[in-house]
Amino acid sequence: MAYRAISGIGEFGLIDKIAALAEPTLHTVQNLITGIGDDCAVYQPSAGLLQVATTDMLVEQVHFDLLTTPLKLLGSKSISVNVSDICAMNALPRYALISIAVPASFSVEMIEALYEGMAYAATEYGVAIAGGDTSSSRSGLVISVSMIGEVSAEQLTHRSGAKPGELICVSGTLGGSAAGLKLLMREKEIMLEHIENNEPYNKSTMADLKEYSNAFQNHLSPIARLDIVRLLHSKNIRPSSMIDISDGLSSDLQHICRSSNTGALVHEGRIPIHPGTRRIAEELQDDALTWALTGGEDYQLLFTISKKEYEAIADNKDIAVIGETTDKEEGLLLSDIYGMTIDLRTVKGFDHFSS
Amino acid sequence: MAYRAISGIGEFGLIDKIAALAEPTLHTVQNLITGIGDDCAVYQPSAGLLQVATTDMLVEQVHFDLLTTPLKLLGSKSISVNVSDICAMNALPRYALISIAVPASFSVEMIEALYEGMAYAATEYGVAIAGGDTSSSRSGLVISVSMIGEVSAEQLTHRSGAKPGELICVSGTLGGSAAGLKLLMREKEIMLEHIENNEPYNKSTMADLKEYSNAFQNHLSPIARLDIVRLLHSKNIRPSSMIDISDGLSSDLQHICRSSNTGALVHEGRIPIHPGTRRIAEELQDDALTWALTGGEDYQLLFTISKKEYEAIADNKDIAVIGETTDKEEGLLLSDIYGMTIDLRTVKGFDHFSS
Repeated sequence: MAYRAISGIGEFGLIDKIAALAEPTLHTVQNLITGIGDDCAVYQPSAGLLQVATTDMLVEQVHFDLLTTPLKLLGSKSISVNVSDICAMNALPRYALISIAVPASFSVEMIEALYEGMAYAATEYGVAIAGGDTSSSRSGLVISVSMIGEVSAEQLTHRSGAKPGELICVSGTLGGSAAGLKLLMREKEIMLEHIENNEPYNKSTMADLKEYSNAFQNHLSPIARLDIVRLLHSKNIRPSSMIDISDGLSSDLQHICRSSNTGALVHEGRIPIHPGTRRIAEELQDDALTWALTGGEDYQLLFTISKKEYEAIADNKDIAVIGETTDKEEGLLLSDIYGMTIDLRTVKGFDHFSS
Repeated sequence: MAYRAISGIGEFGLIDKIAALAEPTLHTVQNLITGIGDDCAVYQPSAGLLQVATTDMLVEQVHFDLLTTPLKLLGSKSISVNVSDICAMNALPRYALISIAVPASFSVEMIEALYEGMAYAATEYGVAIAGGDTSSSRSGLVISVSMIGEVSAEQLTHRSGAKPGELICVSGTLGGSAAGLKLLMREKEIMLEHIENNEPYNKSTMADLKEYSNAFQNHLSPIARLDIVRLLHSKNIRPSSMIDISDGLSSDLQHICRSSNTGALVHEGRIPIHPGTRRIAEELQDDALTWALTGGEDYQLLFTISKKEYEAIADNKDIAVIGETTDKEEGLLLSDIYGMTIDLRTVKGFDHFSS
């Protein structure tokens, strides 16, 4: 049998394979509404109530570097990324299960710092940390969080409900997380150079980079937009489709368009770039727009909504209209500030298995 | 600040710390009935219905060795261990979320084999694989499964309900998993010796060890006792307390007694030792009783039940009465075949963090 490397089919190819293998199991359970393929699975425990469930795994040296990541913030982030998936279904988070594999070198204080961050974030979002599993690890730290949320059948929002001619909206700003990550990577290089050359390195340097603190915060301690979900619920409006931006605007908008069978036209000038990001990009000789499109990990909400429903949230300064959904045949286009259009599909997000 | 190694407080010390940190988050959610400390968390999505939730992480080189573990069986086991936790609450499994971190060296076929095993087991138990997460891993394979089950308020069984004077029951046989593991470890040594000495090693040797196949199966592909839960439901009886034997009879009975504030007296002669285990133990110059008490991973159900309720299942040959619960002050005792008693607490199960 020929060896087929996973990098050859990529992360989404792998997910497709897994979804196909899992598909027959869905039919063994009566109340399972949605399986693999959206931000959350959907289950109906009783009439009128829907439950959404998601899980996220954070792996040392893949998702985080302990040299640049305070454990308390890592704990908080591991909760936030799951709350963000729950929010993407227009649902409210209820409880979480947390598993960790811990290297032998870890101290009790390190685990305490991690769970202090988790408990802090969970309390902020109103999520109970209800269970979990602990194990040793022969290599790095692995954190796996599963979270269950609830939503009424009327409010549940899938990726697949967009129709042509609707508004494409995004909450908050984009690119800040990528900017923070790039800065942390540069800082790490400087740190390692100092160590290599036997020069003193002041550990507090990073903390002193106050002008960048906002970008660091976006990357190390993103906040899930539960406030936007609460706003939508309070206005009694439902987006036609929604996703949270974890892979990047380009990739996540493609998920919505593919699930909904629509195209999209996004205006570059309308994309809300995180304020410090342009300056950081200049300093690092990189491009802020590319970070906003493909950086990912901003954990903002991307949603489509009818023009009529949009009116109810039009006065909200934290929600930007960045374009419109179109017929599928028109493709996914980005119109730049000079009016030229490029194919958004040529701008890629992060793939765990691409080589 | 002094460095405190996790091995100093052990796995249960670590879980206690985590439970204390998570405790305040429980109060943020109205319908959370039980947090950390039982086989599952318990949540009430709507009146009359209870939901139980559990999660288990399997880490390469800690929980399994790919040299001796076929991926299909590993997939199946990762489902079974979670179903077993759901069963320990007297509940029925409904859906699962599965996260994996995959080393770059893995092929597509390896992942397919893993998920084939998962899907096979899930279908057998009637569990939907409803979602998950995939990531790359810089070191070994990590599998994290979370599972949600359901049970009525009348049938829910905690660890904490045992009362003095009840029967202690165990399903199936014990020690088989430990025997299988010891054999696999010996086989691995032989294999590595052959490789070191540049001698040919016939890979099929292990498969030829037919006389041991039962013990291998117990370790590599344990079956959760959903049939026992269904039996209890059909007879309309509820154990006063229940746990699944993952750490070993000694350790898991201690969990029940500590949660229930009782003591226990177990008769050595009544413990159902897995049939092949005594011979394997002799061959490996080890002790079958110790394996049954501390080997763990048998995934049988250990429960307490009133003598009156027991009558309804007394004719079941797959449930053994191994002793009785006693007053807390009497401690946890094992009465051996000569009538001598020893303290069960001196016989320890597996601790992930003990050095």
